[in-house]
Amino acid sequence: MSSLPIFTAAACHAAPVFLDKAATTDKAIALIEEAAAHGATLVVFPESFIPAFPIWAALWPPIDNHDLFEHMVEQSLYVDGPEVAALQQTAARLGVNVSIGISERSHASVGCIWNANLVIDDQGRLVNHHRKLVPTFYEKLIWAPGDGEGLKVNPLSIGRLGALICGENTNPLARYALMAQGEQVHISAWPALWPTRRPSAGGNFDNLAANRIRASAHSFEAKAFGIVCAGYMDAPMRDFLVERDPAIAAVVDDTSRAESFFVDPTGRQLGPALSREEGILYAELDLNRCIEPKQFHDVTGYYQRYDVFSLSVERRRQRPVAWVDGEEPLAQPRDILNS
Amino acid sequence: MSSLPIFTAAACHAAPVFLDKAATTDKAIALIEEAAAHGATLVVFPESFIPAFPIWAALWPPIDNHDLFEHMVEQSLYVDGPEVAALQQTAARLGVNVSIGISERSHASVGCIWNANLVIDDQGRLVNHHRKLVPTFYEKLIWAPGDGEGLKVNPLSIGRLGALICGENTNPLARYALMAQGEQVHISAWPALWPTRRPSAGGNFDNLAANRIRASAHSFEAKAFGIVCAGYMDAPMRDFLVERDPAIAAVVDDTSRAESFFVDPTGRQLGPALSREEGILYAELDLNRCIEPKQFHDVTGYYQRYDVFSLSVERRRQRPVAWVDGEEPLAQPRDILNS
Amino acid sequence: MSSLPIFTAAACHAAPVFLDKAATTDKAIALIEEAAAHGATLVVFPESFIPAFPIWAALWPPIDNHDLFEHMVEQSLYVDGPEVAALQQTAARLGVNVSIGISERSHASVGCIWNANLVIDDQGRLVNHHRKLVPTFYEKLIWAPGDGEGLKVNPLSIGRLGALICGENTNPLARYALMAQGEQVHISAWPALWPTRRPSAGGNFDNLAANRIRASAHSFEAKAFGIVCAGYMDAPMRDFLVERDPAIAAVVDDTSRAESFFVDPTGRQLGPALSREEGILYAELDLNRCIEPKQFHDVTGYYQRYDVFSLSVERRRQRPVAWVDGEEPLAQPRDILNS
Amino acid sequence: MSSLPIFTAAACHAAPVFLDKAATTDKAIALIEEAAAHGATLVVFPESFIPAFPIWAALWPPIDNHDLFEHMVEQSLYVDGPEVAALQQTAARLGVNVSIGISERSHASVGCIWNANLVIDDQGRLVNHHRKLVPTFYEKLIWAPGDGEGLKVNPLSIGRLGALICGENTNPLARYALMAQGEQVHISAWPALWPTRRPSAGGNFDNLAANRIRASAHSFEAKAFGIVCAGYMDAPMRDFLVERDPAIAAVVDDTSRAESFFVDPTGRQLGPALSREEGILYAELDLNRCIEPKQFHDVTGYYQRYDVFSLSVERRRQRPVAWVDGEEPLAQPRDILNS
Amino acid sequence: MSSLPIFTAAACHAAPVFLDKAATTDKAIALIEEAAAHGATLVVFPESFIPAFPIWAALWPPIDNHDLFEHMVEQSLYVDGPEVAALQQTAARLGVNVSIGISERSHASVGCIWNANLVIDDQGRLVNHHRKLVPTFYEKLIWAPGDGEGLKVNPLSIGRLGALICGENTNPLARYALMAQGEQVHISAWPALWPTRRPSAGGNFDNLAANRIRASAHSFEAKAFGIVCAGYMDAPMRDFLVERDPAIAAVVDDTSRAESFFVDPTGRQLGPALSREEGILYAELDLNRCIEPKQFHDVTGYYQRYDVFSLSVERRRQRPVAWVDGEEPLAQPRDILNS
Amino acid sequence: MSSLPIFTAAACHAAPVFLDKAATTDKAIALIEEAAAHGATLVVFPESFIPAFPIWAALWPPIDNHDLFEHMVEQSLYVDGPEVAALQQTAARLGVNVSIGISERSHASVGCIWNANLVIDDQGRLVNHHRKLVPTFYEKLIWAPGDGEGLKVNPLSIGRLGALICGENTNPLARYALMAQGEQVHISAWPALWPTRRPSAGGNFDNLAANRIRASAHSFEAKAFGIVCAGYMDAPMRDFLVERDPAIAAVVDDTSRAESFFVDPTGRQLGPALSREEGILYAELDLNRCIEPKQFHDVTGYYQRYDVFSLSVERRRQRPVAWVDGEEPLAQPRDILNS
Repeated sequence: MSSLPIFTAAACHAAPVFLDKAATTDKAIALIEEAAAHGATLVVFPESFIPAFPIWAALWPPIDNHDLFEHMVEQSLYVDGPEVAALQQTAARLGVNVSIGISERSHASVGCIWNANLVIDDQGRLVNHHRKLVPTFYEKLIWAPGDGEGLKVNPLSIGRLGALICGENTNPLARYALMAQGEQVHISAWPALWPTRRPSAGGNFDNLAANRIRASAHSFEAKAFGIVCAGYMDAPMRDFLVERDPAIAAVVDDTSRAESFFVDPTGRQLGPALSREEGILYAELDLNRCIEPKQFHDVTGYYQRYDVFSLSVERRRQRPVAWVDGEEPLAQPRDILNS
Repeated sequence: MSSLPIFTAAACHAAPVFLDKAATTDKAIALIEEAAAHGATLVVFPESFIPAFPIWAALWPPIDNHDLFEHMVEQSLYVDGPEVAALQQTAARLGVNVSIGISERSHASVGCIWNANLVIDDQGRLVNHHRKLVPTFYEKLIWAPGDGEGLKVNPLSIGRLGALICGENTNPLARYALMAQGEQVHISAWPALWPTRRPSAGGNFDNLAANRIRASAHSFEAKAFGIVCAGYMDAPMRDFLVERDPAIAAVVDDTSRAESFFVDPTGRQLGPALSREEGILYAELDLNRCIEPKQFHDVTGYYQRYDVFSLSVERRRQRPVAWVDGEEPLAQPRDILNS
Repeated sequence: MSSLPIFTAAACHAAPVFLDKAATTDKAIALIEEAAAHGATLVVFPESFIPAFPIWAALWPPIDNHDLFEHMVEQSLYVDGPEVAALQQTAARLGVNVSIGISERSHASVGCIWNANLVIDDQGRLVNHHRKLVPTFYEKLIWAPGDGEGLKVNPLSIGRLGALICGENTNPLARYALMAQGEQVHISAWPALWPTRRPSAGGNFDNLAANRIRASAHSFEAKAFGIVCAGYMDAPMRDFLVERDPAIAAVVDDTSRAESFFVDPTGRQLGPALSREEGILYAELDLNRCIEPKQFHDVTGYYQRYDVFSLSVERRRQRPVAWVDGEEPLAQPRDILNS
Repeated sequence: MSSLPIFTAAACHAAPVFLDKAATTDKAIALIEEAAAHGATLVVFPESFIPAFPIWAALWPPIDNHDLFEHMVEQSLYVDGPEVAALQQTAARLGVNVSIGISERSHASVGCIWNANLVIDDQGRLVNHHRKLVPTFYEKLIWAPGDGEGLKVNPLSIGRLGALICGENTNPLARYALMAQGEQVHISAWPALWPTRRPSAGGNFDNLAANRIRASAHSFEAKAFGIVCAGYMDAPMRDFLVERDPAIAAVVDDTSRAESFFVDPTGRQLGPALSREEGILYAELDLNRCIEPKQFHDVTGYYQRYDVFSLSVERRRQRPVAWVDGEEPLAQPRDILNS
Repeated sequence: MSSLPIFTAAACHAAPVFLDKAATTDKAIALIEEAAAHGATLVVFPESFIPAFPIWAALWPPIDNHDLFEHMVEQSLYVDGPEVAALQQTAARLGVNVSIGISERSHASVGCIWNANLVIDDQGRLVNHHRKLVPTFYEKLIWAPGDGEGLKVNPLSIGRLGALICGENTNPLARYALMAQGEQVHISAWPALWPTRRPSAGGNFDNLAANRIRASAHSFEAKAFGIVCAGYMDAPMRDFLVERDPAIAAVVDDTSRAESFFVDPTGRQLGPALSREEGILYAELDLNRCIEPKQFHDVTGYYQRYDVFSLSVERRRQRPVAWVDGEEPLAQPRDILNS
Repeated sequence: MSSLPIFTAAACHAAPVFLDKAATTDKAIALIEEAAAHGATLVVFPESFIPAFPIWAALWPPIDNHDLFEHMVEQSLYVDGPEVAALQQTAARLGVNVSIGISERSHASVGCIWNANLVIDDQGRLVNHHRKLVPTFYEKLIWAPGDGEGLKVNPLSIGRLGALICGENTNPLARYALMAQGEQVHISAWPALWPTRRPSAGGNFDNLAANRIRASAHSFEAKAFGIVCAGYMDAPMRDFLVERDPAIAAVVDDTSRAESFFVDPTGRQLGPALSREEGILYAELDLNRCIEPKQFHDVTGYYQRYDVFSLSVERRRQRPVAWVDGEEPLAQPRDILNS
């Protein structure tokens, strides 16, 4: 009786080939192929999957990590570069939609990188390019703050898709900005682990529980399905860290690993979760289930008070200068979007 | 001697094909064709004609009607969808003006619908799109509140036309907002029946009389013609309700049926009324008769005191977010207006 | 179970002692005494009861009526004069609330009179003093326009009382301004007859029907009781007019006489009406009956859209000059209110 | 080392004396006394504690509940009435802060009531008066929508206190508006049960889980303590409902009962919960624990992007008319606030 | 012959009482008194003088510093608190202008602090309150980004004074924003040391040279005097760090110490510098020397091309919410400014 | 490990054949050949190298220099003339990039010349054509002000190259406009000497020091390499001046000679400088060294505040007339760019 899409989603709970953009791109393509073979029409990757999540910023003093920063810059992607193009071709070839986290390199500054999330549709078009609004805590040592341009919900063949990166899911205004566009499927992308106070010092909050709270709350408020896609730390990545500093093994090993899982529009987990093993998690999402819960609190419909709350969102990309000639002095990632 | 339009108006006192948007659209087109063949240049339909008025909200507890809500959402129309486009083409083809009530679906929320009234001019343009300001009593279980954007009087070939939906005709500020735009013909759209206290418990007010009071009062105050167009409950609709709950037959059968009729600028009924039979009611409206009564109390002219009363009407459409980029993230019904 | 007042209201369907302020004041006091003896705690008089309604303005050319205007001025009342004081003492003595129409004389100009309505509470206080906003049609030959100061609903022992004069009941903004103060009992004061187009020429609207429409509409919109109190034309008044111009008898005799009656909060007439005989009409008003209809359309509660409609009402008395030193150059009726 | 307050909070998981405002006020005072004797300096009551939560709106058709609406209106409180004054005196006498849900009656309309929450400080001042922005689903049959005036965080002796009513905790904009004022303790007030789809028909969402999701999410996002205070349904209330309609027993008995409990700034439950027994729940709240989690995502500090998101909140009370004279035509609850 | 001020400036090359806001405020007052006794009418303090510069963020992993963050928050100042008031009273008492760096605490969030610089005039008024635009590198783990409100040049008795904090002196737009207000004396405030890559690993840039480059460049471009005021690390501060982690001694001891000195309008150093000893440095500044160099390149005069470059600076304070009622929900530092 | 270019740059610290455009062009070609033979892929020339820097404007009264102005105009180049074409052919032949200062002649006015700087890429394309924004001080007697068209950073084989002429390096907005395009190599072009106040009168600022300050500041702010290329005054040029006026020898001989040198991205000089001898200076520039310093203050990345500073740059060439028909009235240098 109902007409909204029903489809299979895949969450890749996977590790990058640590700090190797080319190899990780190959791995991403292989995972998309595997998921497509299982019938998935939406394939989701974790935060900063290519080339890696810079966990070292948490582990050692800022003054000791300069070499890793340079390495990270080198392995970050230009949005108009060959790696993203390869992903676009894969999506088009297989007819699947892809959401992937990357570390993005800037044409405007050799030392400026962003924590970005890309959405590619099933015809290979790069339809959304979001730069994380504010890097969280020690991520600020690595990434520049993004802007509002990517705060978009895209109407895809699998429904209206939105995505936020990691701690952005804590921000009620960012979350509402997506709800307000009729979001039906929400991706939250996370790293494999997120050390805070050393476990030996008591830790300070349970990141696993926190991810669940945020995912459930967003799905409940938005009446949307949630796809929680976290990274996985494999042995080479762990070894890289412990070889640099054996004393850090205790932190790395005792910090809880993030889970990937699905959430239904009432905030309840849908199917199993993946945490300490790498793999692809699948779920069938029936968007028609989003309708009934809207009767109770439709915060972008009858349950909002537009006369009380006026939210304006600046969604223009921030650029260092506005050129009056209209010429862009640099090759712009934007062109990719429109080609 | 006078130059204001004289034309034939048609009020379709008709039933939808209950909860079937496609079939009801076809029926509406057939009725427009019939009315046009009788010389009508304005064809009026009742409240929420497509796909139906959700009378069930009055009859059973809210916790038992969730399936009907989902069904109603599915059968509601996008203003930029094919059903409205078909109505626009019909109006253009026949050169008639059309006013029709629909249940409108939102792009911004899968569970948000509005009680809307559309006015299409004789060139097929969607010139007014009003969302009922406040759903009345149990209608609040179904529809979201609208906004002021549709509080417009449109200058058409048949004169200055305004329309309010059902209980809005009780609101002196909404009514004055139309008068203040020089309204000459006022449409009030109503459902077929509006149960309140069970007739077996004494009822609580005579909705038939109430509709007459409101229509006459508005025409008298505005010095405008009134077109009262109510819905009709046919056998399939009644059967649907009684089959779901036989005990409700007493309510449905004993509640008075609304009438459709015309009113002249002094508040007097013009011609006969239709109530318990389906059909199209016609009247010739001579707008020149609106002039003389203005001598006595022209509440938007000499008889108003603008130094005492200052009314401001917010007529901007409410949207969940104001995007600074100026791009609308959703296909907007507004585009229809400009195409 | 309910706590709102239940009381007896009296509508004096009566004639003045034509153009004699002293005698008419005596008659008013006698009518208050009679009504109080019948248990009434609210006694209502028609428009411009003291000293008369200047119907001549409708009947003869303006250039022939100067003597009548001078006479009218002479017989008009100062609000701080002895006639009003006598009415206040009567109300206090009997413990009844009184609403009465008078022609009011100005201290600021010997030729300025207003069509005023006074409300005196059951302790003899003059609690409202309203000057008709706009005299209707030929009344403009007699009275000056008033202002917004008297647009007040007064919380009395018998409930929240509001009053409008004659054609003001056609003005949706004036009516809403009273509703918005929680009005529970609404007085509309009318003259005994209101000639328009000569009956021999077809007339132009049925004033009787028009009064009913307005009373019902206001009660229905406000969910308030209505007291429609019209004047009565007695033989001396008719004789005065016909003696001055026998040809006018046809107009005077063939014009319908206004009715006095009561209306319940659903707009239905409550009890009988009085028209062609002088007398006092009584009704028991149970204000608790105002609550239930508010569930359907409470236009000063949930059914209004304050975000769409913003009405501001200027309620300061208009005075010829604003004195910067704060001294009042004339004895002000306002002082009465505060004394 | 740290200077923020540490205090004992009490959540009254209690039932009103059903639909009896005087007796329920007495009971509230007794509960405040008991909590104060246990050292509490903040005492919290559920949604619409005085005189009751109108659960009947969910259970029977709207057309059968008119008598209960009238009864509810009669037992609702004026904010400037004796019941609230008694609560204020109690708070001042015992030196405790009180938050309480009431059904509020309007001076401006005999049929307009609001779902309000009051905060009284430990000197007896009414410091916050919030009217629920949008009644949820079937509550719309009872209460009018409120406005933004009460969206305030009050700096009290026990810290910066905010409160939202029931489904408002689903609204990210309302929640952010409180966070943005430095909220340290957040009250969410709930009814004892909230039937949706009949349990026999499968229900549609787990309200218990939903309350937990919302409470945890708000505390996590705001880095504030949460006090979840739900109502309790006692035997007299249940008997009242089942006596009116024995068939409803299945719904009433099988719907889960809401829990009262506390949440810490990381979203974790603090101490036990109360559900199917009446009582007062206590917890010691150490506000210094709110600081550290702000390092990770301070959504009203470094983690917000004020250049991307601009939220404006209209916090003026909505009134039917703006009077230019500055006089308030009605006794205003506001006066209480300032006295 | 020239009329611009000639005055004595004092740069306090001093250490705070580490992480003790009360004792450091006392020390600041003593230094102001000493400088005033030497004839100074402008007394300048380093970056974040009260309560300290959080150098630990550079030295240890982020996950190990949570306790220090809490301590820093506790010892940060409210701008409307007693410590700033004491400084204002001192400035007024002695008739000197004061510029001082503080760590500022927020009323809107218990975990939000800013790196602020205050300017107090010689009548004790707080005339400028700047929050550092972007914390530099590891400072981002401590402080929130500020905004443009404090980008002001204040016309004081000693000339037009501007100030930027630390790395802001690298930003050509921030610098130009001050030049554009006619800046004559420019303060750059710095910490005592700013470790980057460990000296044992070769370091990565010479902060001492970098400070000189920036100071000279700004004075040369602005044709203004420069006051470079850096912090001093005393033994207790060093001991605190080394006691927490003896291994850090090498970093702390081998990192160059910042210098305090003065610069003339051609970019040349004026008088001696202070580096590894605590003390107050004095210079006489003759603002008339700023005029001649403007002949060569007056970048805010003839040498700018306003038709080519249009710079707009948003100087409104960022707040979490714009309240339409105009009431500020929190005690606002702004009030201080106006009192 | 890193991918940015590493290349050899050449700065020609050379004198023109004074006021002889043909001979100076030949000399420039010879210098390019020599530098290319030494492996340079970027060859840089001083300000107004062809045909000379008009130092006479500083030395004698304006009324005495008319003949020299005429001579200068005659020896200035059309950008589409044979001299520039010869330079383009040389660059293409040798595969080197060239930056050169010229005095440019206008097609639109026989007396209008500009101080221009051209960039030719290693395929011989004229990729940038900048006209100095504002001639400095006495240069205003010779050259017209330019415009923003040449404020471009060009992505060349040797990295992203920008250039400013002389005093433009004092302008923070012009400098930022280049940084904002990802500038990695910055050329500042200078004359051989720049007399101000006579040395015998004390001089007024040290131009040598000033050039160093500016070069270091720009490299430090931009995190870019700097190429400071100044002119050389040879004997024929000195003789020409002293022969015209022997008294000027003191000025010419005692004014310091400008230096040519390189600067690294931290602002430090890289290798030796050339001043009082003519020659070509070489340096190997490794652009990968630009990355790490960006971590500290990336003023076109994370360290800028785009919400606070909005800079717009008008980069359209200024022309005497805008022709509405789109025809260009003159051969335009721009055509060269596209040919």
